[in-house]
Amino acid sequence: MSSKFAPSGEGEGSFQPKFDGQGLLTAVAVEIDSGQVLMVAFMNAEAVEATRTTRRATFFSRSRNKLWVKGESSGNYLEVEEILVDCDEDCLVLKVRLPAKGVACHTGEKSCFYRKLNLVGPAELKRIKS
Amino acid sequence: MSSKFAPSGEGEGSFQPKFDGQGLLTAVAVEIDSGQVLMVAFMNAEAVEATRTTRRATFFSRSRNKLWVKGESSGNYLEVEEILVDCDEDCLVLKVRLPAKGVACHTGEKSCFYRKLNLVGPAELKRIKS
Repeated sequence: MSSKFAPSGEGEGSFQPKFDGQGLLTAVAVEIDSGQVLMVAFMNAEAVEATRTTRRATFFSRSRNKLWVKGESSGNYLEVEEILVDCDEDCLVLKVRLPAKGVACHTGEKSCFYRKLNLVGPAELKRIKS
Repeated sequence: MSSKFAPSGEGEGSFQPKFDGQGLLTAVAVEIDSGQVLMVAFMNAEAVEATRTTRRATFFSRSRNKLWVKGESSGNYLEVEEILVDCDEDCLVLKVRLPAKGVACHTGEKSCFYRKLNLVGPAELKRIKS
């Protein structure tokens, strides 16, 4: 389907994901109400379709080499409200909801991004106020 | 430096990035005021340090195989206010500011994520209202 607003391949119509050499896309999970980035993980074609149709974020675990429904062991499912797709169709943003008091990070933090890198001096990490 | 809040390697202290097999990290650029995800790209060690010290988002272009100061040709620099680091130290969130009326996407859209994937029926993309 041709686009009214961008070159071919960057418009509307059929989703044609561009998987990398390992068959994966990058997916960024963002809490829909706060806009907080919760986590970043990878998806193969099966994970994309499972996420889209079940509306629960499903990733591909590179370490375990298998599909991984986020929250299947912890209960911290990421309920998917929207999936945004980038210009190159190689990256997704998932707008999600966590359960009440839910956390996305295996450390127990709400977001995996709980530390800040200093911009002056040696490269050191500091915890962000919780 | 040991952490008061998380297992070793997930705490405060020296930043020890875990680059992938290609020597890269994933970096997510988020507009600091709106929380909008603008783009996702990759960084090698040199790009991380350039971003941190110049406070302009600098990526590694896999297609051109070289460092790429975002905005160097368009003027759409991403001015970096904060760099967040994930639990695994393999992904960064850059909190950035665009120039007034600036855009992050090569298509002319503010964000690369200007399309939404439908959640029901065939996998189709629709433009988000601009």
